[in-house]
Amino acid sequence: MLIGRVVGSLVADQKDPKLLGSKLLVVQQLDIEARETSGYVIAADSVGAGEGEVVLYATGSSARNTHATEGKPIDATIMAIVDTWDVHGVTRFQKDTALPVTSW
Amino acid sequence: MLIGRVVGSLVADQKDPKLLGSKLLVVQQLDIEARETSGYVIAADSVGAGEGEVVLYATGSSARNTHATEGKPIDATIMAIVDTWDVHGVTRFQKDTALPVTSW
Amino acid sequence: MLIGRVVGSLVADQKDPKLLGSKLLVVQQLDIEARETSGYVIAADSVGAGEGEVVLYATGSSARNTHATEGKPIDATIMAIVDTWDVHGVTRFQKDTALPVTSW
Amino acid sequence: MLIGRVVGSLVADQKDPKLLGSKLLVVQQLDIEARETSGYVIAADSVGAGEGEVVLYATGSSARNTHATEGKPIDATIMAIVDTWDVHGVTRFQKDTALPVTSW
Amino acid sequence: MLIGRVVGSLVADQKDPKLLGSKLLVVQQLDIEARETSGYVIAADSVGAGEGEVVLYATGSSARNTHATEGKPIDATIMAIVDTWDVHGVTRFQKDTALPVTSW
Repeated sequence: MLIGRVVGSLVADQKDPKLLGSKLLVVQQLDIEARETSGYVIAADSVGAGEGEVVLYATGSSARNTHATEGKPIDATIMAIVDTWDVHGVTRFQKDTALPVTSW
Repeated sequence: MLIGRVVGSLVADQKDPKLLGSKLLVVQQLDIEARETSGYVIAADSVGAGEGEVVLYATGSSARNTHATEGKPIDATIMAIVDTWDVHGVTRFQKDTALPVTSW
Repeated sequence: MLIGRVVGSLVADQKDPKLLGSKLLVVQQLDIEARETSGYVIAADSVGAGEGEVVLYATGSSARNTHATEGKPIDATIMAIVDTWDVHGVTRFQKDTALPVTSW
Repeated sequence: MLIGRVVGSLVADQKDPKLLGSKLLVVQQLDIEARETSGYVIAADSVGAGEGEVVLYATGSSARNTHATEGKPIDATIMAIVDTWDVHGVTRFQKDTALPVTSW
Repeated sequence: MLIGRVVGSLVADQKDPKLLGSKLLVVQQLDIEARETSGYVIAADSVGAGEGEVVLYATGSSARNTHATEGKPIDATIMAIVDTWDVHGVTRFQKDTALPVTSW
């Protein structure tokens, strides 16, 4: 899985019937220090993520292994909202902190 | 999923029998600001997309999860025509606008 | 799917039994203007492609969705021989023309 | 599979129900000489790996082929703790050695 | 599939039970001219490949389509030992020749 930030959403009226009811979010990929990269993905949401939240997303066939995405033409799914992660004993990201932790 | 623009089509008379009836479109990958990148994919179409339209496409096994592509040797499928997407509260793309939105 | 040119073939006597009878071709990936890139793949063939031909190939699990490759340890399959493709209304490649079309 | 070092862990309270009980580790990808690269992945753990350990991880649908990850929206799984590997007859990494082996 | 050279092996005592009996080899990816690239993969072996041999390997779910890897958390499998390949009518690699063929 990779870490990303929900930066927006996408609207598509004309779509495959299986996509009805799937919320599509724009996710900017983050690096291990919580910095935004140029990578992005449009992901379905299985956890009620909102804009600005840092999330974990799965890609490929694994993205279809949630109740919300089973059997759908979806190759990226947000399956967790991240609270915190540590690298080498230092917190790199903490939810409800506006910016990445930069004390290291 | 990724966002792309339909820029053309591809014709192949000699093909695997399972591909009969599948329309194959040339899709140029777009970045999050709706700018064309050098990436492309030849995708099957499940929604009747036309040239110039901005679309959402799925890749890998998920591309076979539409009625149009089930069981076929297809690894990329257009499954939605994009109307609009927003990033950080600003509309980056709006259908029926000739160019990407550039007011930010 | 991606577009490639068949530039050669590969011989392997010692192989997984499931590969018996599978012809393995060397495919150089092409960009959207029919120029060769540094990318390549060794692909199975489901359509009788010959050296020099421009083909469409599928990768991943979709590559096993042809009669020729079902259930085999094959992750890339040629599933069409390309006749022509157009980008922005201009023909970028035409079969039986020695070189890419360069009139644009 | 690729080789990585477990450099941290990630906590997410709000997640897809199928993820309950899955420990999520931050894994930095290593190159063939055991040097850290900029690549990372958040992986589930099927072998009880701890921080600092060098591990082998599988991605894609194969990541779901362990008892710990079956049927879950997980696309990367640690499935072995590496003891040693050799390249051209020289040991590149040996467990319980603080640093990569650099005698070549 | 891609072409690689077996350059070493990896030992892991603590691993997912499904990996018992799977030999894990270090494979350096080769380009189309048989030159080593910086890419590598740790692959299972279904054909008895030895160090120094040039092999063909499949990745993703296709890597699980051999008798040796079925149902295992393995995403890369050597499924053939390469004897020779030709590009544009010239032999680029020939088994039992110490180096890549460089006469072109």
